[in-house]
Amino acid sequence: MAKNLTTREEDYSKWYNELVINADLAENSGVRGCMVIKPYGYAIWERMQAELDRMFKETGHQNAYFPLFIPKSYFSKEASHVDGFAKECAVVTHYRLKNAEDGSGVIVDPDAKLEEELIVRPTSETIIWDTYRKWIQSYRDLPLLINQWANVVRWEMRTRLFLRTAEFLWQEGHTAHATKDEAIAEAEQMMNVYADFAENYMAIPVVKGTKTESERFAGALETYCIEALMQDGKALQAGTSHFLGQNFAKAFDVKFATKDGGLEYVWATSWGVSTRLVGALIMTHSDDKGLVLPPNLAPDQVVIVPIYRNDEQFDAVSEVAVALMKDLRSKGIRVKFDNRDTYKPGWKFNEYELKGVPVRIAIGPKDVEKGTVELARRDTLTKEFVKSEEVVEKVISLMDEIQDGLFKRAVDYRTEHTTVVDSYSEFKAVLESKGGFISAHWDGTAETEERIKNETKATIRCIPLDDDNEGGSCIVTGKPSVRKVLFAKAY
Amino acid sequence: MAKNLTTREEDYSKWYNELVINADLAENSGVRGCMVIKPYGYAIWERMQAELDRMFKETGHQNAYFPLFIPKSYFSKEASHVDGFAKECAVVTHYRLKNAEDGSGVIVDPDAKLEEELIVRPTSETIIWDTYRKWIQSYRDLPLLINQWANVVRWEMRTRLFLRTAEFLWQEGHTAHATKDEAIAEAEQMMNVYADFAENYMAIPVVKGTKTESERFAGALETYCIEALMQDGKALQAGTSHFLGQNFAKAFDVKFATKDGGLEYVWATSWGVSTRLVGALIMTHSDDKGLVLPPNLAPDQVVIVPIYRNDEQFDAVSEVAVALMKDLRSKGIRVKFDNRDTYKPGWKFNEYELKGVPVRIAIGPKDVEKGTVELARRDTLTKEFVKSEEVVEKVISLMDEIQDGLFKRAVDYRTEHTTVVDSYSEFKAVLESKGGFISAHWDGTAETEERIKNETKATIRCIPLDDDNEGGSCIVTGKPSVRKVLFAKAY
Repeated sequence: MAKNLTTREEDYSKWYNELVINADLAENSGVRGCMVIKPYGYAIWERMQAELDRMFKETGHQNAYFPLFIPKSYFSKEASHVDGFAKECAVVTHYRLKNAEDGSGVIVDPDAKLEEELIVRPTSETIIWDTYRKWIQSYRDLPLLINQWANVVRWEMRTRLFLRTAEFLWQEGHTAHATKDEAIAEAEQMMNVYADFAENYMAIPVVKGTKTESERFAGALETYCIEALMQDGKALQAGTSHFLGQNFAKAFDVKFATKDGGLEYVWATSWGVSTRLVGALIMTHSDDKGLVLPPNLAPDQVVIVPIYRNDEQFDAVSEVAVALMKDLRSKGIRVKFDNRDTYKPGWKFNEYELKGVPVRIAIGPKDVEKGTVELARRDTLTKEFVKSEEVVEKVISLMDEIQDGLFKRAVDYRTEHTTVVDSYSEFKAVLESKGGFISAHWDGTAETEERIKNETKATIRCIPLDDDNEGGSCIVTGKPSVRKVLFAKAY
Repeated sequence: MAKNLTTREEDYSKWYNELVINADLAENSGVRGCMVIKPYGYAIWERMQAELDRMFKETGHQNAYFPLFIPKSYFSKEASHVDGFAKECAVVTHYRLKNAEDGSGVIVDPDAKLEEELIVRPTSETIIWDTYRKWIQSYRDLPLLINQWANVVRWEMRTRLFLRTAEFLWQEGHTAHATKDEAIAEAEQMMNVYADFAENYMAIPVVKGTKTESERFAGALETYCIEALMQDGKALQAGTSHFLGQNFAKAFDVKFATKDGGLEYVWATSWGVSTRLVGALIMTHSDDKGLVLPPNLAPDQVVIVPIYRNDEQFDAVSEVAVALMKDLRSKGIRVKFDNRDTYKPGWKFNEYELKGVPVRIAIGPKDVEKGTVELARRDTLTKEFVKSEEVVEKVISLMDEIQDGLFKRAVDYRTEHTTVVDSYSEFKAVLESKGGFISAHWDGTAETEERIKNETKATIRCIPLDDDNEGGSCIVTGKPSVRKVLFAKAY
């Protein structure tokens, strides 16, 4: 039997780590900062991938694959990009090992030094735009709408499972367009796809907005983002979509012949979400008992646990369980029947609570007699007996009910933890007492933004895209502000 | 309009490269030996992945993800493995770049040298078995049936698109078992899964067998393989499945408590197929006009091309085309309606011939009048007019007919190019004149195998698992042989 988790109240960060480990989602590996994504954690990522991939394809994108390695010189071509990405990275310098002459093991062969070092991709704009030069000649080649599912590496010093790891899995969209407006529309569209996915699959409410200049992606003219709020009052950037202007087209000389015979640089976007989303999912819904999964992303939506003392009882219970499993599967529900005899029911109950399976059904000999099953909801931790003939319908309606309930709970939490403030002292007090999103006027300068960050650790998460256009005065400098922006401490 | 391809007759190797490039499957990148897999090539790989992933899951496997990097010392732990894999590889030695003081660009920061070098995985046995030590304690943790979809890097000197590239995509299964028999059964099962996939999806007949000791995977006790024959008479290893014994368990100290209280080393298998399969698919079925795809793996099974001279005709033709597309899609057929006005029908015909779309349907104003469509098969390059009301049924039956036809054609080719020989001179003559598989007696020694390889470039592709147990004399040494084995020149 697993130990109880540290509670969120006691130590939120410890609770998170214990949950990730105990629920078999991921663990640290023998390689600094790199995690192993365990089967259960990977199954959640696979469900995310499947839905996102469908959404990308429905909006006209195709998948492709570009090299893992990027020649060092490529990073120097886009000036702002190199500072943002080429610094903390994994550098390949040699291509061979050999046995040490003293028999001490294998060593790097000094004769096998690369002429030019290769960088393990931290993001792929440079190698992709180097390729697009060959693919794009004419307006007929546009728009080019490509996505890649890949691993990337950023040499992070402080890592946390899923949230910040040296290697992570992600998708990166890279599109090329004939006009500025079309590229901006694409960047906005993908932000909306991410928001749709976050809210309707992950059950996480998000604020859509743009980043301030200092928080923008290195090389972007505009970064659109979706920002979510975790249960400890800290924000998490859940996805970004960048309008890159003609920066990469100019850096890699990608021009196209226009319909009327001209020659112009191409307009670009890029957009991505990563395995970080698994961290966001955990931190939004889970409780002190363990993971809580929204049905739309749960690898198993229902688990059936048999209760029995002897073979005869097992046979009787199994018959009912297998029939129920088939019925549920025929309705598209993902069901597991855990008939392992190596673990007791109590152990299994605990296990599936920890793993956040939305609905648990227990069937014992008495249930078979009475024609009922015991149904437990993970989200509310409530139990009830349901008549066998009503179980399928009940489960189907519960899938929506649980999905909607989790979303609503997260919206309520966010509403309670979003505060409008009018002064810097109030700002600091709210940040200290309950955290969350703080909506406040800001004078639009990087200096003020930096000062607030240094003094409070809060950053501007985004300039929301809602319709608030009310002007005011900056809470720090008193200078005019065109609209309120959203601050928070963030992951 | 694209140029004609070099013919297979003229230069098979050149034909292959031109086909890969012209059919938009892949191309070389700016990084030595690394390819870019273009959307159309990647779509074929995605179809392969989807079917294989389903087959792996149906046989009880789960996906997970392990680190890209492997500490150098891990490779030294399994003696035979290090010689096979840790030599030609990408070595990460540093984790930071910085701006050069002379302003010449970014350079590797000498202060950011790793304590231990990291190898970009050429295969993941070592890092996975280092992890399994933590996952496996008891017989209840077994069997452990894991698969990973990943990129791997082997520093190949001579590369060819899909067939041999420095970075490639693959899946690698890594399983752990309580008994030797169970591990062997798993290795055999996965060879059979690969054979099933090759024959029923790729339409490629394969010979199942085991490798000789010198051709085995580094660290394996037995390597099972499937071997296919390409149109130039050369063999291609299309998938391997390894029984690893307790080698990795011993190297990484992975023991389990048995049911009766003992403590034993775990038994292992690993198995993989890669993007190399795309190369095999191309070389098995394609012709001098371009790619020929089996319907089961074609991203588009049917393409509809409208023929028109004005808007009115386009509207009339489109109405019929869209209705047909919907009908076919409702039957599960993957259909594309190419209504681009930027390309002419002739250009499109050429394009889809080059890209190997199994069925092309052309609809013009006369067809609308007559209630017919023109249907062209890619495999036979034949055309016929079909009544509109019969098209759907015709296409559905054609999917099976084309799939089966391609398989049969490949089987016939292989039959014609498999020769049983009784002497070394005959062996050489056949190898010279028509190539293909050569079945011959061999004395079972590595010396003879090596001599044949040096003198003829032919290797033992496998010891087939068929029921031929007829003894004889080695064609080279005359020594006794227990059964014939299969030789060929190979990719």
